[in-house]
Amino acid sequence: MRSTLGWQSDRAGLRRTVLRRRELRADDVAVRVDYCGVCHTDLHAVHTHTDEALLVPGHEFTGVVTEIGHAVTRFALGDQVAVGNIVDSCGACAMCEAGQENFCYEFPTLTYGGTDRRDGTTTLGAFSREYVVRDEFAYPLPAGLDPAAAAPLLCAGITVWEPLRALGIGPGSRVAVAGLGGLGHLAVKLAVALGADTTVISRSADKADDARRLGARDLIVSADERQMAAARDRFDVVIDTIAVPHDVAAYLKLVALDGTLSHVGHLGSVTVQATDLLVGRKKLSSAGSGGRPATAAMLEFCARHGITADIELLPSARVNEALDRLERNDVRYRFVLDLSDLAQSH
Amino acid sequence: MRSTLGWQSDRAGLRRTVLRRRELRADDVAVRVDYCGVCHTDLHAVHTHTDEALLVPGHEFTGVVTEIGHAVTRFALGDQVAVGNIVDSCGACAMCEAGQENFCYEFPTLTYGGTDRRDGTTTLGAFSREYVVRDEFAYPLPAGLDPAAAAPLLCAGITVWEPLRALGIGPGSRVAVAGLGGLGHLAVKLAVALGADTTVISRSADKADDARRLGARDLIVSADERQMAAARDRFDVVIDTIAVPHDVAAYLKLVALDGTLSHVGHLGSVTVQATDLLVGRKKLSSAGSGGRPATAAMLEFCARHGITADIELLPSARVNEALDRLERNDVRYRFVLDLSDLAQSH
Repeated sequence: MRSTLGWQSDRAGLRRTVLRRRELRADDVAVRVDYCGVCHTDLHAVHTHTDEALLVPGHEFTGVVTEIGHAVTRFALGDQVAVGNIVDSCGACAMCEAGQENFCYEFPTLTYGGTDRRDGTTTLGAFSREYVVRDEFAYPLPAGLDPAAAAPLLCAGITVWEPLRALGIGPGSRVAVAGLGGLGHLAVKLAVALGADTTVISRSADKADDARRLGARDLIVSADERQMAAARDRFDVVIDTIAVPHDVAAYLKLVALDGTLSHVGHLGSVTVQATDLLVGRKKLSSAGSGGRPATAAMLEFCARHGITADIELLPSARVNEALDRLERNDVRYRFVLDLSDLAQSH
Repeated sequence: MRSTLGWQSDRAGLRRTVLRRRELRADDVAVRVDYCGVCHTDLHAVHTHTDEALLVPGHEFTGVVTEIGHAVTRFALGDQVAVGNIVDSCGACAMCEAGQENFCYEFPTLTYGGTDRRDGTTTLGAFSREYVVRDEFAYPLPAGLDPAAAAPLLCAGITVWEPLRALGIGPGSRVAVAGLGGLGHLAVKLAVALGADTTVISRSADKADDARRLGARDLIVSADERQMAAARDRFDVVIDTIAVPHDVAAYLKLVALDGTLSHVGHLGSVTVQATDLLVGRKKLSSAGSGGRPATAAMLEFCARHGITADIELLPSARVNEALDRLERNDVRYRFVLDLSDLAQSH
C-alpha cells in the first residue's frame, strides 16, 4: 500500500490523517492532487457521516500524474489531469455503452464513499495529496485552464453541462438559472457561451452585478411577485440549482411551452401539481454528474471559451472553515482547497 | 333564449331536464348533438357537484349544424361537426396566439362548468340535444369518421395526441401506454399510426389480446416485477393514462435516457424522487386537451388512418348506468351517449 496525507471526517470536523492508497494496477495512474473543490455533497457527507467507515471527502480535483501503471497509454508522467465524482463503472451495460457511466446499471464507483469494483474497499476522496485512479476516469486538463479554478468543472460544471446539452441549448435559447452558487454560476457561464439568452433568478438583487458580469442579461428576484409574473413562460429551460428543499411551482411558471425545469440542486423528493406541468406541457427533469464523453467535451468547450469557476482558494488546512462558510452560502462561488500544504512524503 | 332537453346532475344522479341555450350570436352555430362521449372528468364533476350551480356534463361530441349566426362562414346548415372541452378563449394572449387555446392565460372557457366570456353565464355541457358554440371552436368532422365513435377523439384523443406530437413520436419511436382505458386505447392507436413501436402496460394480462388488436407489439403486466425489470429504460415516451392516484416511480424506470413520462390520466399532485429523474436524465410531463390547430390536425390524421374510439353506444337515458360502469372501469373503451332519445322540440 501507498500512503499519503488527507483530511478525514470525525465528530470535531475534518482532521489531518495518514491515508492508505492502493498500489498501482496496470490501468491506474497516481495523481498528485493540487486542487480540490468543495461541493455541497461533501457537506452532506460530513453531516451524515457515522464512525463506521472512514470518510475523506473531495470529488472534483486537478493535479499532476506522478506514476502510471504499465498498461496506461493515455497519460505520461507530468501530465495535468482532472478527475470528477466517478472513478469506475461496469463498462458493459447499456448506459456505459452510451457513454453515460454516471448512470451505470451497476452504479458507478464514486470517488469517495464508493466501493472499489476490484478489491471491495471503500474509496477515499481527494481532500488528500494523492489519488490513485483508473486511467479511463482521469481527463487531460486542457492547456490554458487554471488548474485551481478548473477543479469545480469536474462536478459542478458537468452537472449543469449535461442538461444544457441534452436539452439542446444553443444560440437563441432562453435559459434561466435559479440559484447563483457553485452550480448556478457555472450554469450561467456555460449557457452564455452556448449562445443562450440567460437570466439569473435569485432571492435578492444582491447578485445582480455578478449576474451581469457572468454574462447574464438580467436578474429576477424570486421574492418579487411582479417580476416573477412578468417572466411567466419566458424560458425554454430553467436550471434549478437551489441546494435546499423548495417548492418548484413558482419556477415551473417561468418555463415556456414544451420547456423544461431541470432540478439539479437538491436531491430529495419533489412534489408538483400535475396541472402545473399540464398547462404549457412543461417538463420536470433532473441531472447529475456526467459521462466520460460529455466530461471530455465540456473540458474542451471550457478551454475554448476560457471558462472556469469563480473560486476562493484556501490552503487545505482551512477545510473546516470552507465547509462552515459553504453551509452559510458565504462563498462566491466555489471553495477550492490547495492541497500543497500537505507534504507529499512523510 | 332557446330551450332543449338534457341531463342534469342532482343527488340521485343525472335526470332529464329542460335547458336554456342562448340565442345565436353572430359567430355562433347551433349544433344538434347526436353523440357525446362519457369522460372521467364527467364522473369527477358529478361526484364533486354541489347544488349551487346547474351541472350538465359532456364535452366530447359530434352532431349536425342546424343554424348559423350571420357572421359564420366556416359552416353551413347540415355540416357534421365535432366539439371538445373548450368553447372559447381570450384569443389574444401568447398561448392563444401559439394555437394553444387550451393554455389560454385567461383560462379557456370550458364546455360545461365554465363561464361564458360575454354574458357571464355558466356553460352547460353536451349531455343534451343542442349546443350553441362559437364557430371557431367547432371542427368539421372529416367524412369517413363514424360520428359516434369519433366523439371521444375530441377529449380523450386530443389529450394523448398533443403529447405524442410534442414529444416527437414517429417511426422508430418506442412508446409505452400505461393504462388501457378511454385515453389509453386511443394513445395506442395514435402511436401505432404515427409509426411507433408501441407497448401496453396494464395491471393484468386480461387485455393482452386487445392490446395486440389495437396494434401494440406486446403487453407488460405492471404487477410482474420481472417483466417490469426487463423493460427498464426501454421507452422514449411512456404515456401514463392511469386515472387514479399512483406512484409513478415504477413507470419512470421504463423511460429511456432523455425520455419522458407524460402523466395525463390523473390531475392531482405527483411526487417523484429527484434521483429517479436524475438517473437517465428523465422527464416528467403532463398534457391535457388541445389547441385548435392540433385538434384539427388530429381529426385529419384520424380520418386518414381510420382511427376512432372503440365505444359502447348507449341511449342517453342510460347515462347513469354509463357513469356507474365507468367508475368500475367496466367499459371497453369509451361510453358514448346517443342523444336522439331526447326529442329536439318539446
